[in-house]
Amino acid sequence: MGEIQVKDLILNAIKNKKVNVLKELFETVPTIDIAEAMDDIEDVSLLIYPFRVISSEYTGELFAELSSESQEKIINAFSDKDLIKLLEESYADDIVDSLQELPANVVSRVLRVAPGDLRKDINQLLNYKENTAGSIMTTEFLEMKNTVTVKDAISFIREKGKDAETVYTIFVRDAKRNFVGTVNLDDLIFAKDDETLEDIMDRDFVSCHVNDDQEDVANMFKRYDLTAMAVLNKEDKIVGIITIDDVVDIIVEEANEDVAALSHVAPLEDSYLDTPAWRMALKCIPWIIVLIILGTFTTMALDKIEKTQVFSIIPVLICFVPTLMDTGGNTGGQTIAMMIRGLGTKEFTPKDFWKILGKEALTALIVSSAIAVFGFVWFTIEQYTGIVTNDKAEFLAHFNDTIPTIWNGLVWKDATYFAQHTFTVSGIVAITLFCGSFLSKCVAVMLPLGVAACKKDPAIIAQPILTTIVDVVSLCVYLGIAVGAQFLFSGLFS
Amino acid sequence: MGEIQVKDLILNAIKNKKVNVLKELFETVPTIDIAEAMDDIEDVSLLIYPFRVISSEYTGELFAELSSESQEKIINAFSDKDLIKLLEESYADDIVDSLQELPANVVSRVLRVAPGDLRKDINQLLNYKENTAGSIMTTEFLEMKNTVTVKDAISFIREKGKDAETVYTIFVRDAKRNFVGTVNLDDLIFAKDDETLEDIMDRDFVSCHVNDDQEDVANMFKRYDLTAMAVLNKEDKIVGIITIDDVVDIIVEEANEDVAALSHVAPLEDSYLDTPAWRMALKCIPWIIVLIILGTFTTMALDKIEKTQVFSIIPVLICFVPTLMDTGGNTGGQTIAMMIRGLGTKEFTPKDFWKILGKEALTALIVSSAIAVFGFVWFTIEQYTGIVTNDKAEFLAHFNDTIPTIWNGLVWKDATYFAQHTFTVSGIVAITLFCGSFLSKCVAVMLPLGVAACKKDPAIIAQPILTTIVDVVSLCVYLGIAVGAQFLFSGLFS
Repeated sequence: MGEIQVKDLILNAIKNKKVNVLKELFETVPTIDIAEAMDDIEDVSLLIYPFRVISSEYTGELFAELSSESQEKIINAFSDKDLIKLLEESYADDIVDSLQELPANVVSRVLRVAPGDLRKDINQLLNYKENTAGSIMTTEFLEMKNTVTVKDAISFIREKGKDAETVYTIFVRDAKRNFVGTVNLDDLIFAKDDETLEDIMDRDFVSCHVNDDQEDVANMFKRYDLTAMAVLNKEDKIVGIITIDDVVDIIVEEANEDVAALSHVAPLEDSYLDTPAWRMALKCIPWIIVLIILGTFTTMALDKIEKTQVFSIIPVLICFVPTLMDTGGNTGGQTIAMMIRGLGTKEFTPKDFWKILGKEALTALIVSSAIAVFGFVWFTIEQYTGIVTNDKAEFLAHFNDTIPTIWNGLVWKDATYFAQHTFTVSGIVAITLFCGSFLSKCVAVMLPLGVAACKKDPAIIAQPILTTIVDVVSLCVYLGIAVGAQFLFSGLFS
Repeated sequence: MGEIQVKDLILNAIKNKKVNVLKELFETVPTIDIAEAMDDIEDVSLLIYPFRVISSEYTGELFAELSSESQEKIINAFSDKDLIKLLEESYADDIVDSLQELPANVVSRVLRVAPGDLRKDINQLLNYKENTAGSIMTTEFLEMKNTVTVKDAISFIREKGKDAETVYTIFVRDAKRNFVGTVNLDDLIFAKDDETLEDIMDRDFVSCHVNDDQEDVANMFKRYDLTAMAVLNKEDKIVGIITIDDVVDIIVEEANEDVAALSHVAPLEDSYLDTPAWRMALKCIPWIIVLIILGTFTTMALDKIEKTQVFSIIPVLICFVPTLMDTGGNTGGQTIAMMIRGLGTKEFTPKDFWKILGKEALTALIVSSAIAVFGFVWFTIEQYTGIVTNDKAEFLAHFNDTIPTIWNGLVWKDATYFAQHTFTVSGIVAITLFCGSFLSKCVAVMLPLGVAACKKDPAIIAQPILTTIVDVVSLCVYLGIAVGAQFLFSGLFS
């Protein structure tokens, strides 16, 4: 059954108010697929129809999966009684996620009608800072005392479990309300009825605090293969839990943020297809402007080189400027990307600085040597085949005729001036390539680790600064070597 | 308790063979932390010590978390009997993950001693292609017939559940062995003893096939908030399951691959810190060389421009070449990154081509206009403040003195030649900036979607080609406009 067909089936069942077909669809089609189909419904009376006829088992989740436009329409169409029923079927964290997208008048209506306990939970969750453990946790979880027996625990789950976000992990506290362990549902199943939770609980749990960064929480889930984790307040009491389904979204979100930062875009809040062009443009423009401003340093460096007239004397050197800058940027970019993902996924921390610097310096040496050797050969081929033109007459006018014979001994006996000039140019470019990429890789290690050590986000700050440093330094090296070569051949020995 | 302290505690307990301390540590410290500490142990008799004294509940997981070096040492030190015991405590998918890193003689010994059933499972898993659902699934899961009662199901879980990777999802089949639904453990807990699985099972499950791409599987887990999913063979029978903990690793791995491809590095197989410098260099060098070769087209274009002598006539234009190329690359890079993550996370597919192209074209128009306007102002400031020098004398020598008065009416009455020259240069650069970034963004949409439509990986192919196309086209535009402007001012009206 294709995606389109299912969508049509759902919309038809709703439009024609076929209760039984709709019920069967809710049984057999995942709720998010139904929600996506329903987002296309304009007529609010049709939109709320499933909420009237479908089992409450599905409506809480259905509401959470709808777009904020549909949610707003539904809340406005619902009576207070309907709304209370809907809120009771939803999890506090899902409600908070919805509220964050809805207009203020809708939010205040929801908070007004929400039952006291739920309102307290919602308000608490709304107050945690974005991207903290508190902001993604839910307050509906199963907490039991360590002295409870397995039998009582199972009865308690049967009674209260439906309201909890997960019944697979039970959080165990002692008489002082301190969190002392976790019991998995399967441990209960395997245990004897009269054992206490204390006897069977896992004590090798990990937990986080409400203000911990969500990325750190996600890394803990990954490292410890968790499905749920307790969130503690300052007094080390459990105030909520985070479950794996929320963590999966965070992992994807954090990866998208790293990719966005490395590509100089501000991260999107909504999905790509839901973001209008003007908002997308606003995400793109600021960084491009920052990069143009930073590029001024490159322009200045090139202006200084141009003034030395080295480009007038050996004009072919201009042709290699983009290659030099691109290669410097690319080699550094490789390193910076590995640093940013490594820091993001906690594979290493700024504490490993010296270890990483040593490894990258060695890598940089190998990479730079390899591409300089390749570059020398390749740039020679480019000149030899006429892909780029080097003007022999111009060269000869500036360089001392007798000096390039130093190449003779090194290369071949009957070296022509053409070859001499070619090798000089290739040499200048290759040496610059070596210096540029070596330096670029080294700076690309130090920048993100340095930025991360200062507790700033390395993805956002490091990359643009890198490009500028590398461009400017590459150009200075290029100028230095070109002027040096010019001096060597035309000045020193004449 | 800091990380370092725990490590020392573990190593001390092992070295001094303090059984009770070690047992307490295994109870209270997550196994992966213990495994990481043990990886530092050189002495194999110490390394195998915990396997002798610690409850079998921990040893399977402990072994799976150790480095392949430690695993190899342990297998070599173990008798066949020890090895069988260890294999029995491990999950088939963990064993396969270990075997893929171990030398052939160790692998064949493991396969030789493994009990028949396990050997069959291992062989089956080893045969699935990398990155498919088959390669990440495990064969230990709970499958029951739809006619089984809740009571019998719970007894069955109590009996056989310990061997399964998860008991939270039970996979239900009908009399023909077809997969018909899933039952979650909590559904069993909440159900009445005499209900059958058929009565309580979820029929809105999703599943995948053994040859499906692991990235698609991960996206399904994310979309449907799953914790386990059935893997079917060609006859739609369940052959294994995938659990959320493996999926989390895949999501991170796929994100790392996208970042690596966008940054022109081949993805690392091991963690960053475990990859030696020479191997890292091999991951970096090929792409840099490819990019240098592709950069030849840029060099050629620049060579052609240089031959037109436009740089000799208005030398300041050289200074803006890096800004033009960087900006083109950066604006296109923004779009390509969004395309690659969007395709990777299945936010959209190549089928949405026209929708996305329309949106990006509009975005490109806004972005390019904004940066062209900003650029015009900024480049004028750069020239006005002397950040870059434009040589009035040279300009005047080439341009007709009377023509620039066309600026007078447009800008200000007493416009100097300096201002005229400045605006001309800023205008040329700004128009090129507009054309370059507009084109770059449009190409950056089409390339990845086109590559993806051909079932190739857009992350690897699209980015380098983009940079080359944009660089060359930007330069041609630059040349065209510069020559046009030169013609306009010096030729047309003279």
